[in-house]
Amino acid sequence: MQRKLLAAATALFLVAQPMRSAHADATDAQIARIVDEGLSHSQAMANASELMDGIGPRLTNSENFDKAADWALGKFKAYGLSNVHKESYPFGVNWNLDGWSAKMVQPRTIAMTAMPVAWTPPTNGAISAPVILAPMSKKEHFAKWRGKLAGKIVLVSLPGEASQSDKPQFHRFDGKELADLDKYELPSDELEPYKDFTKSVSFAYELSQFLKAEGALAMVRKSYRENGLVTGEGYNIDPAKRLALPFMELSSEDYRRLARLEIAGKPPVISLEIAAHTNDADTDADYLVADIPGSDAGAGYVMAGGHFDSWIAADGATDDGVPSVVVIEAARIIQSLGVKPKRTIRFALWSGEEQGLLGSIAYIEKHLATRPVDSNAYGVERFVKWTTQFPISKGPDYDRLKAYFNLDNGAGKIRGIYAENNVAATPLLKKWLAPFDGMGAGTVVAGRTTGTDHQYMQAVGLPGFQFIQDPLDYGSRVHHSNIDTLDHAPPDDVRQAATIMAAMLWQAANSEAVLPRPPLPTAPSKANPFKVEDPDKE
Amino acid sequence: MQRKLLAAATALFLVAQPMRSAHADATDAQIARIVDEGLSHSQAMANASELMDGIGPRLTNSENFDKAADWALGKFKAYGLSNVHKESYPFGVNWNLDGWSAKMVQPRTIAMTAMPVAWTPPTNGAISAPVILAPMSKKEHFAKWRGKLAGKIVLVSLPGEASQSDKPQFHRFDGKELADLDKYELPSDELEPYKDFTKSVSFAYELSQFLKAEGALAMVRKSYRENGLVTGEGYNIDPAKRLALPFMELSSEDYRRLARLEIAGKPPVISLEIAAHTNDADTDADYLVADIPGSDAGAGYVMAGGHFDSWIAADGATDDGVPSVVVIEAARIIQSLGVKPKRTIRFALWSGEEQGLLGSIAYIEKHLATRPVDSNAYGVERFVKWTTQFPISKGPDYDRLKAYFNLDNGAGKIRGIYAENNVAATPLLKKWLAPFDGMGAGTVVAGRTTGTDHQYMQAVGLPGFQFIQDPLDYGSRVHHSNIDTLDHAPPDDVRQAATIMAAMLWQAANSEAVLPRPPLPTAPSKANPFKVEDPDKE
Repeated sequence: MQRKLLAAATALFLVAQPMRSAHADATDAQIARIVDEGLSHSQAMANASELMDGIGPRLTNSENFDKAADWALGKFKAYGLSNVHKESYPFGVNWNLDGWSAKMVQPRTIAMTAMPVAWTPPTNGAISAPVILAPMSKKEHFAKWRGKLAGKIVLVSLPGEASQSDKPQFHRFDGKELADLDKYELPSDELEPYKDFTKSVSFAYELSQFLKAEGALAMVRKSYRENGLVTGEGYNIDPAKRLALPFMELSSEDYRRLARLEIAGKPPVISLEIAAHTNDADTDADYLVADIPGSDAGAGYVMAGGHFDSWIAADGATDDGVPSVVVIEAARIIQSLGVKPKRTIRFALWSGEEQGLLGSIAYIEKHLATRPVDSNAYGVERFVKWTTQFPISKGPDYDRLKAYFNLDNGAGKIRGIYAENNVAATPLLKKWLAPFDGMGAGTVVAGRTTGTDHQYMQAVGLPGFQFIQDPLDYGSRVHHSNIDTLDHAPPDDVRQAATIMAAMLWQAANSEAVLPRPPLPTAPSKANPFKVEDPDKE
Repeated sequence: MQRKLLAAATALFLVAQPMRSAHADATDAQIARIVDEGLSHSQAMANASELMDGIGPRLTNSENFDKAADWALGKFKAYGLSNVHKESYPFGVNWNLDGWSAKMVQPRTIAMTAMPVAWTPPTNGAISAPVILAPMSKKEHFAKWRGKLAGKIVLVSLPGEASQSDKPQFHRFDGKELADLDKYELPSDELEPYKDFTKSVSFAYELSQFLKAEGALAMVRKSYRENGLVTGEGYNIDPAKRLALPFMELSSEDYRRLARLEIAGKPPVISLEIAAHTNDADTDADYLVADIPGSDAGAGYVMAGGHFDSWIAADGATDDGVPSVVVIEAARIIQSLGVKPKRTIRFALWSGEEQGLLGSIAYIEKHLATRPVDSNAYGVERFVKWTTQFPISKGPDYDRLKAYFNLDNGAGKIRGIYAENNVAATPLLKKWLAPFDGMGAGTVVAGRTTGTDHQYMQAVGLPGFQFIQDPLDYGSRVHHSNIDTLDHAPPDDVRQAATIMAAMLWQAANSEAVLPRPPLPTAPSKANPFKVEDPDKE
């Protein structure tokens, strides 16, 4: 059985799909028109400002997401797309942040930089109390603090020390770095690659229960970023397991100041306020779909997407608002050609990505493929378990989806594409990117990327790819943070990305050759069947 | 005349002071005790937390400065120093920031990252109005906006674009960089090196007058930093020329969002509130002095200092709270020896440094040397003009001050010392730093540094020096900003600096040899007497 699977895995990258269409490939003239429209007549930054500056962050299943969704559907309609609609899926609570404040009031009054942790209960007015530094990261830590937390606001993170990293925070790939991405990643047989993440989500819930039982008033964590940045990331969306206490995040500087004062024996008093409201009747989230219909109904469709949801800090510009605008702009550019593609081109704006690719999983289950998933799994748990269940069953569109292109590595320009281990697709991807070599975008690498919406398409054997983008300051400081604004999306990068996305879609929609795909994946063999796990390993 | 001056300038660096004392040099054993006390029994971080975390920022002539001054005087007294006192000098207004907020309220409500510009008038409650983007940097720009500003909050900065700098933001000097600092800087004959700075201070006043006359409600500028950092630097301290309108600084991200919305034709409405109070009866500021008396009244004194004042953002930790704590810790370390130095060791904690070295200028004028300065010059103007006036007249302590060591390049550890063009002092400085080579602090370079309190001692021919410090993230993000907290002062750097400052003072106080000094400076000759200024040059 294991040997058979190994053979299947090897074959997986050598078997191309048969050619199904007699239509001509996209002409060079059409590529030239796409380049002109995308680079000289871009609407991307104007649209991006409407969305990011005017509407702002788009937490999944929030009122602001719905407002932004209406805006995006309006754009697709204005550009003449068809089948413009939302599809919904079970998500969890509808939660809306209305405002917050965090102050130290003893030994002196100062405003602190803070973000409520997403989905936290509100405080119902300001809570004021002395802090206690009680770092806890697993249940075994509770005993030490039992009986000491009543009436306190609890600082639950280790304060640590400020980073002395001398790495540049803004960066563009050079040729060597791009070449280094060309690394085939051997398939993993680990069943739950994100299991630590599930644990941490579950621990936040258990911690809040413990603190509440002890009579604490609120829990406060330190931002994982430095230099005044906060994120407010939170994952407790299961309506049956809401956090028992308000949960606030402070900037590292503000958190450590409180910690030092407490350690010095003078616990500061802080005042926290979180205003938020929920709509418990609304437990379903939506993602958005819009089509440019193809001329050949039997030729299937190609697709591009980004996730329209964001976190709550700043405007969710680089993650993933600008890439979402790039998807909309690619639709506009293609429509400007006035030519019907052979295959339908579908544009998707996902949601629930930040809580575990939940929108794209829902799309896969509805249209592409199903797996025998645990129907009780929720949010992150659902995400973590989804990739590992077999057998996979084909859905109605499994054979029809000929390509999916995802954009979710910030707002940097496109430098190429990850073949996502589907190395048999490399020649065709290279051909389609060749016109954009001079824009720095010609690289095709074997490497995989995970953690965004192409991942589970790729996991069920579909040709889902993610573009390589210049990192800029996305990972170093902007991602999920309170500076994720449109400032961090250089306009030249944005129009380049939209142009290339449009051209890739156009070529994929009209190409005679289609991207090869692996056979339907089955459960992998053990990479090393003779490995014995260390029983001390957690 | 010019040739004579050139000869004098050449001689300046060759003439050492005569040896005046028969006392023995500091013993190696005393240096060893200083190292032990400073590194193994440091009180610096505990003191730093009391000052930075517990008391906070120390704007010159504010109530919080006074509170901090009482704390510092208490420390000096607790460590048994003598002559612990304040000295006062004319400064300007007494201004105290009580709180602030900045929100965008249309098209949506979000909190913005802001700092009032120091010394701004308060708003007296919240001001709410649409913004107008009207960048102005000189009077010639006023005409374009006349008649358009009534009822508006005016965005007066160019929005610009976000930085794409790929320089690391945290840095320690390597050997080559230290060697590169060893560059003798030819004396300048420019009469007003900071004249553009004076102009900008004066322009802020004129701009506020123009905006008020036009019926605008407030002025808003963009932070010169990126990534959510704000500073609140302000220089309008002349009581006769206070800003006519409230002046708020916004983070680059928040400012540019407003600018984009305004450019897109939908001017956002913002709400600003600044609470501040002044005490117009209190126009004098103080600096602090404390002595460890010497055994030889005729041997003069040596001195170390940092500036105790800060700006209003965060806690003024690296600028210059931690170096001030290092000065206090050096006093504690020396006192722990229980041995009287030959010369008196004086510790100074300056004020008004941020507005133009005003405290140290006052000390110089009172004790060391006077210049025929314009008595109408105020604040920054006084600072700018002070260095250029001749003749210099010796004050009572001119010959008595044998060394001054300044610490004001952030919280990085000491890497050596700038000879500040006084190259004749190099051998003795090298001798005193030799024990600290293994701590990375043995470098003596010819180079000059300006903009802090040794500068005008050095300008009147006194042996005033500044230590070289590792840059860390001081210049790149922390300096003057809302993240200038104790996090950015690595404890190992702080105890190293205090130890070396104590050892330098101890050696300078007990050394038979004294540091050479140049002859009393006179007006410099023209570097190039045949140069003709371009009449188009501003």
